[in-house]
Amino acid sequence: MSGLTHIDAEGQARMVDVGDKAVTARVGVAEGVVLMAPDTLALILSGDAKKGDVLGTARIAGIMAAKRTHDLIPLCHPLALSSVTLDLTTGSEPPRVVVRATVKVDGRTGVEMEALTAVSVACLTVYDMVKAVDRGIRITDIRLVEKRGGKSGDYLADPA
Amino acid sequence: MSGLTHIDAEGQARMVDVGDKAVTARVGVAEGVVLMAPDTLALILSGDAKKGDVLGTARIAGIMAAKRTHDLIPLCHPLALSSVTLDLTTGSEPPRVVVRATVKVDGRTGVEMEALTAVSVACLTVYDMVKAVDRGIRITDIRLVEKRGGKSGDYLADPA
Amino acid sequence: MSGLTHIDAEGQARMVDVGDKAVTARVGVAEGVVLMAPDTLALILSGDAKKGDVLGTARIAGIMAAKRTHDLIPLCHPLALSSVTLDLTTGSEPPRVVVRATVKVDGRTGVEMEALTAVSVACLTVYDMVKAVDRGIRITDIRLVEKRGGKSGDYLADPA
Amino acid sequence: MSGLTHIDAEGQARMVDVGDKAVTARVGVAEGVVLMAPDTLALILSGDAKKGDVLGTARIAGIMAAKRTHDLIPLCHPLALSSVTLDLTTGSEPPRVVVRATVKVDGRTGVEMEALTAVSVACLTVYDMVKAVDRGIRITDIRLVEKRGGKSGDYLADPA
Amino acid sequence: MSGLTHIDAEGQARMVDVGDKAVTARVGVAEGVVLMAPDTLALILSGDAKKGDVLGTARIAGIMAAKRTHDLIPLCHPLALSSVTLDLTTGSEPPRVVVRATVKVDGRTGVEMEALTAVSVACLTVYDMVKAVDRGIRITDIRLVEKRGGKSGDYLADPA
Amino acid sequence: MSGLTHIDAEGQARMVDVGDKAVTARVGVAEGVVLMAPDTLALILSGDAKKGDVLGTARIAGIMAAKRTHDLIPLCHPLALSSVTLDLTTGSEPPRVVVRATVKVDGRTGVEMEALTAVSVACLTVYDMVKAVDRGIRITDIRLVEKRGGKSGDYLADPA
Repeated sequence: MSGLTHIDAEGQARMVDVGDKAVTARVGVAEGVVLMAPDTLALILSGDAKKGDVLGTARIAGIMAAKRTHDLIPLCHPLALSSVTLDLTTGSEPPRVVVRATVKVDGRTGVEMEALTAVSVACLTVYDMVKAVDRGIRITDIRLVEKRGGKSGDYLADPA
Repeated sequence: MSGLTHIDAEGQARMVDVGDKAVTARVGVAEGVVLMAPDTLALILSGDAKKGDVLGTARIAGIMAAKRTHDLIPLCHPLALSSVTLDLTTGSEPPRVVVRATVKVDGRTGVEMEALTAVSVACLTVYDMVKAVDRGIRITDIRLVEKRGGKSGDYLADPA
Repeated sequence: MSGLTHIDAEGQARMVDVGDKAVTARVGVAEGVVLMAPDTLALILSGDAKKGDVLGTARIAGIMAAKRTHDLIPLCHPLALSSVTLDLTTGSEPPRVVVRATVKVDGRTGVEMEALTAVSVACLTVYDMVKAVDRGIRITDIRLVEKRGGKSGDYLADPA
Repeated sequence: MSGLTHIDAEGQARMVDVGDKAVTARVGVAEGVVLMAPDTLALILSGDAKKGDVLGTARIAGIMAAKRTHDLIPLCHPLALSSVTLDLTTGSEPPRVVVRATVKVDGRTGVEMEALTAVSVACLTVYDMVKAVDRGIRITDIRLVEKRGGKSGDYLADPA
Repeated sequence: MSGLTHIDAEGQARMVDVGDKAVTARVGVAEGVVLMAPDTLALILSGDAKKGDVLGTARIAGIMAAKRTHDLIPLCHPLALSSVTLDLTTGSEPPRVVVRATVKVDGRTGVEMEALTAVSVACLTVYDMVKAVDRGIRITDIRLVEKRGGKSGDYLADPA
Repeated sequence: MSGLTHIDAEGQARMVDVGDKAVTARVGVAEGVVLMAPDTLALILSGDAKKGDVLGTARIAGIMAAKRTHDLIPLCHPLALSSVTLDLTTGSEPPRVVVRATVKVDGRTGVEMEALTAVSVACLTVYDMVKAVDRGIRITDIRLVEKRGGKSGDYLADPA
């Protein structure tokens, strides 16, 4: 036994067999942060439509990425997600965009990876849209915030 | 003018037109870190084959993700990448996996996003494979380390 | 409230949460038309095998596209489709190919978009295969013909 | 000879061999229309942010679809697109959203199909976002507006 | 009637409608063989890490391919796979890598194609990684080994 | 040095850097065979349209798969293929479908894997369409037949 569910007794990667798990309502919430220069944030915020388009484009990219999680992460199961929500907010000290994703499914396995993938791709999309004016951007603190449903019990992260 | 190349004069998202840019050799190097509990790192490191499989699986996921960047990030151009390399190393203070991606292309636009996407998906894959034993993992400090080629000149980030 | 289910109270795009909807048998039927010059239609119809290949290729493309709907349309849910059928017929006044798609699922949300996506991609495939001889082709009248199952009740469009 | 470039002498579908064609700058412009009830258009237009999100989401979906054209249309060649632009405007008589896509490439074959695919998927995305309030929507008049570059010469459609 | 479930009465390809089939636990096991020169096999086996990487990369590729079966094989249904396992072993007379895939689902249709697709792509990946030193490699004997669940009954192939 | 181009000095999988290779015209030809019972072959051949649809569907699936090779095989480079041709023929002793794929590119690396992937997926598609009547089908002898272009010289396999 390796102690890792994705590694079998011979040390080989495997998809965990979830066939015997119960179908329950599951929720995963994840968060991540894009740190940038003050001027970069100002550009994102300059004018409603413009804000709409940087954050709005990232929101769409994150939603679409959640649906492709199993296609990107080798050992993730394909899941018929029932909901994906992305919230993008901004803060000024330090200048940042905060991305939060909430994913739901009625399924045999959790949706933490779907929420984390949505957050990661939304952060990358913000990065892409402002990288021409700011090369020092960092994507940071991508983490699970909450998890509900399934045998292993609920989880709520400590405040960041 | 919005000041952002991906936003047009009316505040709408767009792909930048790279048709007039020169085809040059371009390199992008990005890095990211997966922070975890000491026991989690120990499990990843326990035994060659096992290490091979967690880090090896993440490496493959990252390479494949680099090739799908334009399919994930809405305004990225499709590019015929000539090389993708992923290096995964571990460190103990704090316990972590460090992912570094180097991407090359002969093309009209840079490969920063390809390197950053490779890093992000490799980090998510490490996360996925150890999440059952450690819910407090964080993916952090995803950033551009180096960029060469193209009109905007070379870039080398300050040491982390 | 925006009045649109895909837009939340703050005017932001979202996937509708279908977690509380019942799993029922649902059917969606859509149609579309490719209008072309008489000679173009004659070429499509010249010889069984050839007809087979233009219309047959479009049929396969439409079936495959139905399965990718959630990957193309940002706010569509992934669904385990139980059936996709494409019927392609031709008519002469005006010269045209008519594409009809029928999609079925046992799920929490309807399959109108899957049927419409199948029709659209099949029409585009017909277009692609004859565009070299006819630049004036139009794809037109893509619409929902019928919808069954789900809480909002059945729908049958008026004849075209 | 079948008269169709995508059908060989035996009536079988094939990708045209473009290996001997010259690499030139090529442009394709396509258009399509989504017809809807007046109230549906009013909902789309009610409030800037909301307008941003229906049309903005469709714009992103269209841009991403252009990049996947070769993955959807069986006989299309993969191309390293240098630019994709989507313009969505509205009109009131009849109530409608008009989608126009402009795609550019330096390549061996044209980008008509990329422009038409972008238009189709953007129209489907508008449809998806308003279908809950209006089942009579039609997507219509998807057609090539302009084509430049390549041996077959330029093309400009008659005004609609 | 054509006698083939995927061909309708008019000889046209179709997805079989599985809406009326029962959801049962289903298993598919498939196998395939990559034949190579003795020196090629020796290179694959030279050193644990290296072996890990050729066979490990093929294992990941096979797992990911199983999840994309419905995206590759036109008439396959999308399925929420509950488990995919790939076993790669080597043999010396003749020098070969043997790939075995086991796929499970609780669904309305079997997973033979998912197992066969996983095997095929894993074999192709082995091929890719050693082709520079051996152009005479053959992929052979890809076949269904076992099938359980569903109305048509269980199946166990004769030993190879 | 591992002796394998896809494995680096530390035994880790990598994409070969092709940035320094010349862009030349390259061709790859591959072949594979689907062995089946005589009655199964008879069903495939019964009637032109039907034959068209089994073999025609497999042809389209193979062409589309060639374009996705880099998305399936982890270390393959994305390439702008200029041509993909699939030929499917039948033979009776033993009863079989023979699939041959020819792929061309002007690029920095060869297209053997694209041809082999096209063959594999076309064979799997034939399998899928007749598996309900014949569980003993085998896909066999997938191999490179010919390779032209590139520094390593041309290759022509011995007759099967």
